Amino acid sequence: MKLTQTIFQQEGPIWESFCQHPFVCGIGTGELDQQIFCHYMIQDYLYLLDYAKVFALGVVKAQDEETMRFYANLVRDTLDGEMHVHKGYMERLGITPGQVSQAKPTLENLAYTNYMLWVANNEGILPLTIAVLACSWSYAVIAPLLIQQHPGAQDHPFYGEWVRSYASPAYQESNQQILDLVDRLGANCSSQETAHLLEICHNCTEFERLFWDMAQRGR
Amino acid sequence: MKLTQTIFQQEGPIWESFCQHPFVCGIGTGELDQQIFCHYMIQDYLYLLDYAKVFALGVVKAQDEETMRFYANLVRDTLDGEMHVHKGYMERLGITPGQVSQAKPTLENLAYTNYMLWVANNEGILPLTIAVLACSWSYAVIAPLLIQQHPGAQDHPFYGEWVRSYASPAYQESNQQILDLVDRLGANCSSQETAHLLEICHNCTEFERLFWDMAQRGR
Amino acid sequence: MKLTQTIFQQEGPIWESFCQHPFVCGIGTGELDQQIFCHYMIQDYLYLLDYAKVFALGVVKAQDEETMRFYANLVRDTLDGEMHVHKGYMERLGITPGQVSQAKPTLENLAYTNYMLWVANNEGILPLTIAVLACSWSYAVIAPLLIQQHPGAQDHPFYGEWVRSYASPAYQESNQQILDLVDRLGANCSSQETAHLLEICHNCTEFERLFWDMAQRGR
Amino acid sequence: MKLTQTIFQQEGPIWESFCQHPFVCGIGTGELDQQIFCHYMIQDYLYLLDYAKVFALGVVKAQDEETMRFYANLVRDTLDGEMHVHKGYMERLGITPGQVSQAKPTLENLAYTNYMLWVANNEGILPLTIAVLACSWSYAVIAPLLIQQHPGAQDHPFYGEWVRSYASPAYQESNQQILDLVDRLGANCSSQETAHLLEICHNCTEFERLFWDMAQRGR
Repeated sequence: MKLTQTIFQQEGPIWESFCQHPFVCGIGTGELDQQIFCHYMIQDYLYLLDYAKVFALGVVKAQDEETMRFYANLVRDTLDGEMHVHKGYMERLGITPGQVSQAKPTLENLAYTNYMLWVANNEGILPLTIAVLACSWSYAVIAPLLIQQHPGAQDHPFYGEWVRSYASPAYQESNQQILDLVDRLGANCSSQETAHLLEICHNCTEFERLFWDMAQRGR
Repeated sequence: MKLTQTIFQQEGPIWESFCQHPFVCGIGTGELDQQIFCHYMIQDYLYLLDYAKVFALGVVKAQDEETMRFYANLVRDTLDGEMHVHKGYMERLGITPGQVSQAKPTLENLAYTNYMLWVANNEGILPLTIAVLACSWSYAVIAPLLIQQHPGAQDHPFYGEWVRSYASPAYQESNQQILDLVDRLGANCSSQETAHLLEICHNCTEFERLFWDMAQRGR
Repeated sequence: MKLTQTIFQQEGPIWESFCQHPFVCGIGTGELDQQIFCHYMIQDYLYLLDYAKVFALGVVKAQDEETMRFYANLVRDTLDGEMHVHKGYMERLGITPGQVSQAKPTLENLAYTNYMLWVANNEGILPLTIAVLACSWSYAVIAPLLIQQHPGAQDHPFYGEWVRSYASPAYQESNQQILDLVDRLGANCSSQETAHLLEICHNCTEFERLFWDMAQRGR
Repeated sequence: MKLTQTIFQQEGPIWESFCQHPFVCGIGTGELDQQIFCHYMIQDYLYLLDYAKVFALGVVKAQDEETMRFYANLVRDTLDGEMHVHKGYMERLGITPGQVSQAKPTLENLAYTNYMLWVANNEGILPLTIAVLACSWSYAVIAPLLIQQHPGAQDHPFYGEWVRSYASPAYQESNQQILDLVDRLGANCSSQETAHLLEICHNCTEFERLFWDMAQRGR
């Protein structure tokens, strides 16, 4: 069984269950309070800056040129692509760049990003790649499932753009490339290594859950 | 005003308030469930292993020989001194070394240690030293205050050793040396640097609070 | 005086003197043995992979989004731009990608890149930026000076492309942006910090010299 | 074959050949210029400070408590033990602590220590341990061989202390413990991993040679 299959067996059901989380569900129904969403957007923006730093550590830890290029692209895609959606929302919500640069990450945010950053720094390229998986893959699971559970979610005048963005072929393909890297790097994992990687992935899943809880609480 | 005075103004009252936390208070009254304490002991043992790693990064980041030696001593004191108390309790509680080495840190534990480790790795010797402060100093505040609030706490047949250990002159002196290092390294901080350091310290205070909450929940 | 001016006062004359180095001079006259150049190309290719890793650490150490983007662009420009010249030469010289990926960096190469990587990892964003300066700036000095000292150097059928590449407005502009970053980050350096930065820069200049010596020796 | 045996097959003869290096040989015959030795002492003192930092990174990278303690002891032994010999010599040579703290490491010194530090930071606990091997083991080889080749070397009024120190059972035992750690951590290395480790070890052997060359040149 491929490493990503083993991971999905363990984490997939939890990621799917995030669609029942009031915050995520509220995006699907379109009934989420926009102020609550606004707070999340700012926190997620700060999160993505650190997520891009984890990808940059992927360039450093990579052991071949192909993997270096892969991570260099992810750094750029995050800073220029994914954050583009955020900038659109922030403009619509009237959040200025100045407000964002003065915002502070919440403790849940810091806990998650610093966990990934330390794993990335302290371990090798495979554990690093596993650490970015829960965020990337769970969003790739959530968005299409929201559309299935809430037909028309992708057309909602406000939340539709968020849903379309993560359900888009471009995002799904980008996530698939991370999965392919996991399976390439993890082809010969011992069962002990696999157990260690599953632990990292599950910790990140739990940090995802705390992030949704934090989002739901608003400020 | 010394940097440590500025820090105590902000964090001191929160650290003192930890004595009202049901877990800490239960140590003072002696009424804390020993199973709950047992779980905490194991988690704190795992915490100290990572805390010693932060001290080891202090050896790496030190910019003079004196600071290198200071942190080298803290590594040894943690591994041989503070953990000695834990080993005594674990023996009394019938926890085998095998059980400890198979135990996994909780998410709260990981979040706290990885935050410190990443700050230690990513920033300089002063932010690193600030990051270890909340743990060291809050325990130095809590133990004497527990004795004051619960006379005889230090003589309790089970919890007395814990209280005595952190109220001891040796522990208080060790904590004071960290404060002295903070004031030596931070003598010429700009107000912008001070604000950044206060933020790190406060984050660690919040991680301390989550650790006590986790301890109280038990497993 | 701007920090880059202070640096140029100290290092500029040494960088200019590299044009008298037999290897560099041989590029200017066009009389350099192509086998010798071939060995250098492979080593420089390996060097650039690690140089891109230093830039990736710039993304990690950056303290604002603008600097993150700047370093993310440098990672990509190095992997896609500067290395493009190398790939052209390697094709002309009949070096296959397989040969490059099996080549090992020489000790001089390793010494230089690991010095930069450790400074980048262990210190802040300004020392990191200083560490990449000697390579970037000395090439920006050498190429136009070679054209001045050896008119027509830029038109040599074999070495002309190398000369044109580093004398090009695109390369000069890219180097200037690094200088601007140095002056922005270093605007308020104390004299003690400046002395430390000058030391890092000079060490890298000396590693540059050893690299040219290694290039001249060939394999 | 144990990993350390494979390593000794490759590097042992080179380490033994260092006894023919004029600097090392001059210690054996007692005819080495004391000013030349004085310069080496200062450089080696600076080297040991960084060597202790590599050991501190061993505490960080260790994956079990036993290895953490092992490296914590090496940090202390280096700062308190090996450097004790240096301090004795520096006192006899009239070098003040102030002179040492103002001394700058040579480029050869920096190249060697930063190579080890970056390997230690960027890779796992086994490559880190391999990186410290060439220094520790080559000295353990050189000192007894000097006594064999130059009977009475250990009794020389000036250089005898240096020879006795590295030939002592305490030093030999400490080196043996590092070898035992290598064999414990490297018990199941693939041939690809072994090749990578041999490369690291050989690079350090070459840096040792450059260090002796630098020592011989004096200032």
